[in-house]
Order: sequence, then C-alpha cells, then structure tokens
Amino acid sequence: MTGEKADDVVTAAFLVIGDEILSGRTKDKNIGFVADYLTSLGIDLREVRVVPDDRTEIADAVNALRARYTYVFTSGGIGPTHDDITAESIAAAFGVPLNLDPRAVALLETHYAPGQFTPARQRMARIPEGADLIENKVSKAPGFRIGNVHVMAGVPAIMQAMMDAIAPTLATGRIMLSETVAADMPESRIADRLSAIQDAHPETLIGSYPSASEGKFTTQIVIRSRNEAALKAAAADVAEAVADILG
Amino acid sequence: MTGEKADDVVTAAFLVIGDEILSGRTKDKNIGFVADYLTSLGIDLREVRVVPDDRTEIADAVNALRARYTYVFTSGGIGPTHDDITAESIAAAFGVPLNLDPRAVALLETHYAPGQFTPARQRMARIPEGADLIENKVSKAPGFRIGNVHVMAGVPAIMQAMMDAIAPTLATGRIMLSETVAADMPESRIADRLSAIQDAHPETLIGSYPSASEGKFTTQIVIRSRNEAALKAAAADVAEAVADILG
Repeated sequence: MTGEKADDVVTAAFLVIGDEILSGRTKDKNIGFVADYLTSLGIDLREVRVVPDDRTEIADAVNALRARYTYVFTSGGIGPTHDDITAESIAAAFGVPLNLDPRAVALLETHYAPGQFTPARQRMARIPEGADLIENKVSKAPGFRIGNVHVMAGVPAIMQAMMDAIAPTLATGRIMLSETVAADMPESRIADRLSAIQDAHPETLIGSYPSASEGKFTTQIVIRSRNEAALKAAAADVAEAVADILG
Repeated sequence: MTGEKADDVVTAAFLVIGDEILSGRTKDKNIGFVADYLTSLGIDLREVRVVPDDRTEIADAVNALRARYTYVFTSGGIGPTHDDITAESIAAAFGVPLNLDPRAVALLETHYAPGQFTPARQRMARIPEGADLIENKVSKAPGFRIGNVHVMAGVPAIMQAMMDAIAPTLATGRIMLSETVAADMPESRIADRLSAIQDAHPETLIGSYPSASEGKFTTQIVIRSRNEAALKAAAADVAEAVADILG
C-alpha cells in the first residue's frame, strides 16, 4: 500500500506524550499541525490523546490506538534526558527489545565531535528491534516506525521535518473536500435549516461553528465531503439558507 | 468533599469534542487553558482526548475517563445545531433520559424575545436526568454536571466562564509547585547530571524541555513537587549543575 491511493478511508490517531502539556507549562503546537497535514494527505485523524511521561500510560495508549486506526503518530519523549521514555515504552507496547541501533549510532557518531557521543546522547540511538528509522534533518537524532506506529520528536520544527520524511511512505485515501459559508448570525437562527440540509445530503458532513466577539455571535458553516458534486450541492443549499434568513 | 482540600491527589481528564479540531479547521485553545487552570487549583490533569462528533465515540470516551479520574471536563457540542450531540451522548453514557429541563427552559425563555425560543434553541435546554446546571454568563445556554463529568461549551470565552462557575465546587489537592532553571545549552550536555539529580530527589519530577531557534538549542529544566523543601533542594542542584557545565 505504500504511497498508493487506498479505496477505503485511511485513519489515524495522534498521541502527544509529555507532562509539560498536561501541566500547562508548554502549549501544544503539534495537534493542529498534524490535523492539517493528515487532512491534506487524505488521512482522517480520528482521535488525539495526551498522556504523561509514564511507561504504562504510553504503552497502553499506543496499544489501544494502533489496534483501532490505520496509523498512529506520536510526538515527544525521544531526547537524551531521563524523562525521555518513549522508546522504551513503545518497545514494551510491542514486546520487543530496545537496544543501541547500529544505524542510529552511525548517524549520531558522525554528528558529534570525537568523544562527544556521550552515554546520554547514546540514549537517542536506542531503537525498538524491528523498527525503521525516520530521518531528522534538523538535529539528526532519528525517530522510528514500528508496525503502524510512527514515533516523532516533540519540538515542533523537528516533528514537522519528520512528518515530511514519513509522508511519502503513507497510504492515503480520497481527500476530504471542504467549503465554508460565513453566516453573520448566531447559529441558532439557521439551525433548523442546517438540520434539513444535512438530512438531504447524507454524503456530506455539515458542521456549524459559532464564535463570539464583543458580545456578537457569528457562525461559520463548514461542509465536508469526499464527493465534489455532493459538496457543491450542499454548500449551495447552505448559502441559499443564509441569504433567505438575512434577506 | 466540595470545595475542601483533599489529602489525596485529585485527578482530571479533559475531553475535547469536535470534528473541527481533528480536521484542523479549528485550532484548539482550550487544552492549554484547562491545563493551566486545573494546575493552579491543585488538580492534576492526567489525560486529554479529542474525539469526533460521534455518539459512540463520545460515550465510550466519557465512560473510560470517568472511571479513572476524579473529574472529567468536556468541551464542545452543546449548541443548537444538528451536529451538537454531546448532551445525548452523555445521557447515553450514563444510561439516563435526556429531556427538556425546566430550569434550563426558564433560563433561555427569558433570554430570547417572545416567540424566539425556537425548537432549535430548545435543543440547548435538553439536559440528562439528574444533572446540575453549570452557569453560562456569556450566552445563557447552560452546561451541566452529571456524576463527576462537567460538560462545557467549546467556544473558549464561554468555556472559561463555565470553568469559573465550576471551580468553587471542586475538591482540590495540594498545589504542585514548580521552578524553572534556564540552561543555555542543548539538553544532552546536562542529561547525565539531571538523571542523577532526579534519582537524588525522588519527591520531585524533573523535566527537560529543549527548544530550537535558528539552529541553536537551549533547554528549560522544570522541577515540580508538592514538597517545597524538596523542590528548592532539587532546583539548587540543577542550577549548580548548569553553572558547572557553563564553566
């Protein structure tokens, strides 16, 4: 399936690993990026989880998600410090050994000055047995893929580079198309019409997203479908409903 | 336990409900807010999930999370449109009926002009049986609490107002204290020292957070503990290690 278009829908989950997200210390920037990226590839992101730096929590989440979705992507916990425990947790999830990987050692030995590939840095060369490496153009220390699980760094610039390295290897489905209709009204004014339009266009997914600014509510109506004709027809009905109500 | 200090650790999960987050159309702003808010109250956020607008997915996630954590907070899906299905999903999770709630009806009837409390708006008054209402100072339509699950709006300004309404009712644990030591070096240079400091201070959690800017890596080292003396001692050791390495 590598790189081919799959007829079926291709699904994914994203697992964010890190105490710092749960404590609020770090504000996640990866969820939105991965959501956009997978959508643009034609892969449906179906679930996101954030879990702490805890071996059991990471392994349990990976095992739950890899059984349910075509792909799992993780971010965080593959650096050189004691709190970077993703590699050992993934190895435990798959029941495989975690050893120094000769390919990763070779990459990192040439990256550091002689004598500077210290024991801490060698932690970044521990890769679960049977995994492929994921290239890291930013700082060399690789991610890895094992089964359907892709393990990436948490630093956004590195994670994004790793997604670019992974993308050509992924099976993709038909792209989910989308159109947005702006409605200058609170969503409750158009709710009945939207419900009828949704019923009339079962091949589409219609979402209504209100926002509030200075006490005034406006609404963005998003129509999504893998079928372009269905999308256009539903979007036209939504635009007509908005015009009717305003006019 | 309402409003009291609990000796034990109080835990929470946050469930974000909405296709728009998973498609990338909307970038979540609630996870970081809730993480900061709960941390400041002395409640440990242990897990976050994002699920789509799907009854089974929402109900399954709520049931998994409410069994594991002291509290569950949800955001999204309680508006007036057809894609707002959180209330019915939560009712299903708890196995209780979902009917028009007289308290919610009374709130919303006075909010809208006569004759304007339409069937779509009445959707926002459907509350699972046995739930308490959560006040919405921004736009009136209430959230609700059932069991240990707090159901809030997805619009950030409304969700934040609902958190303020909920906060006085929550049991809280001892506040997790934190100190940050900045280290102008890649984290791999201090990794061995941090590991030894972590071992020497088991009452603390030491996290190392690298960031990259224009090819240069710096590190923030965050020490957390509920024991102030342990926190100070570990932070002093980290600061000493940084000074040693920088020379």
